[in-house]
Amino acid sequence: MAAYMNMDTLRFLLTQVHNISDLFQYSRFKDYDEETILTFLDAIKDFSDKELFPYFREMDEKPAYFKNNSIIAHPQLKKVMRQSGEMGVIGATFDAEYGGLQMPEIASQAVYFIMSSANNHCVGYPALTGGAADLILTFGSEKLKELYATKMLSGEWGGTMCLTEPQAGSSLSDLTTAATSTDEGFYQIKGQKIFISGGDHEYCDNFVHLLLARIDGAPAGTKGISLFVVPKKRITDTGELEDNDVLTAGDFQKLGQRGYCTTHLVFGESGNCHGWLVGEANQGLKYMFQMMNGARISVGRDAVSVSSAAYHASLQYANERPQGRRLSNDGSKNPNANPVLIKEHPDVRRMLLLQKAIYEGSLSLTLQTALYHDLSRVALAEEKEKYHLLLELLTPIAKTYPSEKGREAVDNGVQILGGYGYCSDFVLQQHLRDIRIMAIYEGTTGIQSLDLLGRKVMLKNGKALELLVAEIMQTIGKAQAHDELKPYSKQLGTTLQEAKGIIDFLVPFAMKGQYERFLSDATIFMEYMGTLIIAWQWLKIAIAAKEASLNNKDTYTSKFYESKIHTMRFFYKYELPRITGLAATIKHPEVLTLLDGEEKEW
Amino acid sequence: MAAYMNMDTLRFLLTQVHNISDLFQYSRFKDYDEETILTFLDAIKDFSDKELFPYFREMDEKPAYFKNNSIIAHPQLKKVMRQSGEMGVIGATFDAEYGGLQMPEIASQAVYFIMSSANNHCVGYPALTGGAADLILTFGSEKLKELYATKMLSGEWGGTMCLTEPQAGSSLSDLTTAATSTDEGFYQIKGQKIFISGGDHEYCDNFVHLLLARIDGAPAGTKGISLFVVPKKRITDTGELEDNDVLTAGDFQKLGQRGYCTTHLVFGESGNCHGWLVGEANQGLKYMFQMMNGARISVGRDAVSVSSAAYHASLQYANERPQGRRLSNDGSKNPNANPVLIKEHPDVRRMLLLQKAIYEGSLSLTLQTALYHDLSRVALAEEKEKYHLLLELLTPIAKTYPSEKGREAVDNGVQILGGYGYCSDFVLQQHLRDIRIMAIYEGTTGIQSLDLLGRKVMLKNGKALELLVAEIMQTIGKAQAHDELKPYSKQLGTTLQEAKGIIDFLVPFAMKGQYERFLSDATIFMEYMGTLIIAWQWLKIAIAAKEASLNNKDTYTSKFYESKIHTMRFFYKYELPRITGLAATIKHPEVLTLLDGEEKEW
Repeated sequence: MAAYMNMDTLRFLLTQVHNISDLFQYSRFKDYDEETILTFLDAIKDFSDKELFPYFREMDEKPAYFKNNSIIAHPQLKKVMRQSGEMGVIGATFDAEYGGLQMPEIASQAVYFIMSSANNHCVGYPALTGGAADLILTFGSEKLKELYATKMLSGEWGGTMCLTEPQAGSSLSDLTTAATSTDEGFYQIKGQKIFISGGDHEYCDNFVHLLLARIDGAPAGTKGISLFVVPKKRITDTGELEDNDVLTAGDFQKLGQRGYCTTHLVFGESGNCHGWLVGEANQGLKYMFQMMNGARISVGRDAVSVSSAAYHASLQYANERPQGRRLSNDGSKNPNANPVLIKEHPDVRRMLLLQKAIYEGSLSLTLQTALYHDLSRVALAEEKEKYHLLLELLTPIAKTYPSEKGREAVDNGVQILGGYGYCSDFVLQQHLRDIRIMAIYEGTTGIQSLDLLGRKVMLKNGKALELLVAEIMQTIGKAQAHDELKPYSKQLGTTLQEAKGIIDFLVPFAMKGQYERFLSDATIFMEYMGTLIIAWQWLKIAIAAKEASLNNKDTYTSKFYESKIHTMRFFYKYELPRITGLAATIKHPEVLTLLDGEEKEW
Repeated sequence: MAAYMNMDTLRFLLTQVHNISDLFQYSRFKDYDEETILTFLDAIKDFSDKELFPYFREMDEKPAYFKNNSIIAHPQLKKVMRQSGEMGVIGATFDAEYGGLQMPEIASQAVYFIMSSANNHCVGYPALTGGAADLILTFGSEKLKELYATKMLSGEWGGTMCLTEPQAGSSLSDLTTAATSTDEGFYQIKGQKIFISGGDHEYCDNFVHLLLARIDGAPAGTKGISLFVVPKKRITDTGELEDNDVLTAGDFQKLGQRGYCTTHLVFGESGNCHGWLVGEANQGLKYMFQMMNGARISVGRDAVSVSSAAYHASLQYANERPQGRRLSNDGSKNPNANPVLIKEHPDVRRMLLLQKAIYEGSLSLTLQTALYHDLSRVALAEEKEKYHLLLELLTPIAKTYPSEKGREAVDNGVQILGGYGYCSDFVLQQHLRDIRIMAIYEGTTGIQSLDLLGRKVMLKNGKALELLVAEIMQTIGKAQAHDELKPYSKQLGTTLQEAKGIIDFLVPFAMKGQYERFLSDATIFMEYMGTLIIAWQWLKIAIAAKEASLNNKDTYTSKFYESKIHTMRFFYKYELPRITGLAATIKHPEVLTLLDGEEKEW
């Protein structure tokens, strides 16, 4: 079978770069050790080999579609959902008391990374179900937990998040779905939601929608949004399932991820759609953001997964395809010599290394972010805030860098195959289509960038940023111990200084009340920060590889460790310099993208 | 009807930036003036509106396919081919004596730009037919001209270029298609060709393949390649058409350009395929490169066309879609205010300007390159070489920049539509798929980059480069006359100096016999040069706009001219700084992409 990810790299990142074993000292994770986690990952790899990867092409070629008010999806979904439930994947991080495995988030991300690399069309179904169940378990009433969460953890019922409406798009403050209070403990829900991933299919017995709506009379804007549980079929007092007036009105046909349905749902068209309030009224957006933040990290992780699959597919081609010859010293070629494998050509090697640098660096960032999530949950009281702030700051970057640069990585994978890369007979064009959605799902790159600069950098007067700088400085300090790593550590330090300069330039605009100007180049700032953060991750990886080599750790071969250092060098030579000019762009005195006065001619 | 290109911008580039009227002094073009050219373009626009654009979505949704040894393509092709013939598009630049319009190449590129923006799936059919006929008219015998060229110019017969073979890919020196001499003036052809664009369909009565093959006993490598005319149906002595043993074996299904068939052809399977030698034996690659160079510029132009269509589609959406609100001074938003059009959001404006900067700058480069082509043909003897060298140097850039950066432009168009951009109901995802092939057709970006650095920069001891520098310096000098343009002229000068530094760093590797090292970062060098060249084009555009404003030229509105200068500023703020760090990458002491000794672990 074709490779779609590298287990050694994943294990190395978990155990030697991010030291997952540090987590097992905390009582929440006391039942785990490295071996149990790695064994679990092996089981997931086996499951992915057998039940996910073989259906990857087919789910693209036979996409989910809408027919007779329902969605026809691939029948393999039934096995995916049930087995994800049985293996504990859906509730991997949940408390044991709710039937979860109480596993660290970093391990759960590793699990989904494997599954999504094998088949990114599948994982959204169990992953969103887990996210929805998590919301109920965190903020819902005991009754909601009891009635809905168990069936979701087992994969029998699917879960979704229902935010987007046709007229509002990314602007959540314009939601109009209405919730009308009744005397019977539920609300009557009425409205339409679009782009609802995994919103309906025949392989789950029921769907539990976590839906944002506005209670009659609630304040305008985001302050008047509440969160509801709205099942497709509601549970009667006698425990039966009855129709809850949730109509499936369509399935959006997409460029990629065609096996993952994207539904249009109509709630309460017959005035008989019951919803149950989760937590307090008008606090819905805050609750939803717990799920949303998790979903953002997961979208980034899925982008890493597609990049991983594309890298391995193009690597395999480069390892098998003979074409052309290497140049001799004087630039000539001997036409009588045998052609070489294309991976011997420098430009092909560059494209392979670029993919590897982007996807492995991004994977490290996903795990780093998940680790902060774990620490924000289990660390001592005074440290919790630290890790929470780091998590908040890294979330938009962990979503965006893999989505934006992963696209470039996959694109280079296509290019390695030349004309074949563009042909439907080869899988690379599917990866290219699949990954394109990641910069759109759960808040576009523009929205993530506003979040990073407008909210996260400003958080607690810049405290999150200070903490991040401290973390990066710690890595820089460690690298200084190794002569071989000093130049990169210095380069990262210079970049970090420049980042501070950019922030010092931008923040005064917010202070001066020029808020639109402050944020006008937020996307460029995101590009700068994303690259800086991945450079940091690569230095961490190089330190771990260096130390393992020095200590004669033979968990992996010396070639394995050398390859990590080589890829770090590649990132620092080819990628980090790409942001050199962006500081000048951001600090440029001309403001060209604000509408000021009359509209220009386009 | 939705806009797909801007006639004012095209006219302005032709008449005020590239001064097409300067060409009419030469006897070859003496029958033309600005008005006749612009009137012809209006007729093409009308034709494109009526016969091309309306079929654009449909050609994607109902792709060409293979059935019963033939290709089923869209029936509108018949009209496209015949009308392209009748209007003179196919032979627009050909000598009048051969039935051509003897129009400048720059005008012909403008014609195809309009057509391709309307429907890029169609234009390859007439364009390649023209290129193939041109080869016959330039190098073929009188008999070949008489028998084949006329029917191609009328669009009754299609023409192709047959280079690629399954085992050889980009490595033309490994071609194995065989040509065996006979006593009857023709050769017996035997071999297979793949990725043959427009290679067969029912809407042309015959196909004339310009095919590379190896005459028995010819030297190995590219020195043993000859060019042949191999028709699908050959003409008997009595003027009948008879089958020539050219079998259509398949059609490659592609990610995009699905209306443009990509065929697999088998020649001489029954030992009865006649081919006629074009020009001298073993000179085939040289001849073919006349067509190839034209095709490379045309692929770049098609990339510009798709970028243009995508820009206008996303602009239309941004002009119609209300969503969200602008930020007030303190960063808050009033949820009770009406939503604004999304084009008022700075990040959407940035994405629109980025598209505009890339596609209009690229269009200017296409026209610039075509103008050099015209001048290399008509200028006085001593100037001919100059323009020929400039044409040679710009060709790989005119192919690559629009293909690589155009993809980024289209990608930003998709992003403007958010989730809708990813849905099949909207056209942007089609543009994204269509443009992806441009970096592969007629030599991948890697191959163009080797051509630029390895051949063109080294051409005549760097003379082509010297000439280009002189052209750019002339533009810089002109810009100095306008205070408003001085900063940009200075920025361009600095970049040009740095480019020279890069070349001075690289060339010694070639001299020292480290040829593989010399070329190992050719693709990064291409990225640098492409951006520099487009910055040059934008400065030219800004000078023309500035001078027109100063002279109160009212051909276009003052807003039109301001918008050109604004977009130039955008390019110099957002795009030109992106290559700042690339000089450091290229000059970096570490060499990471050469296979040296044992293979690394991937």
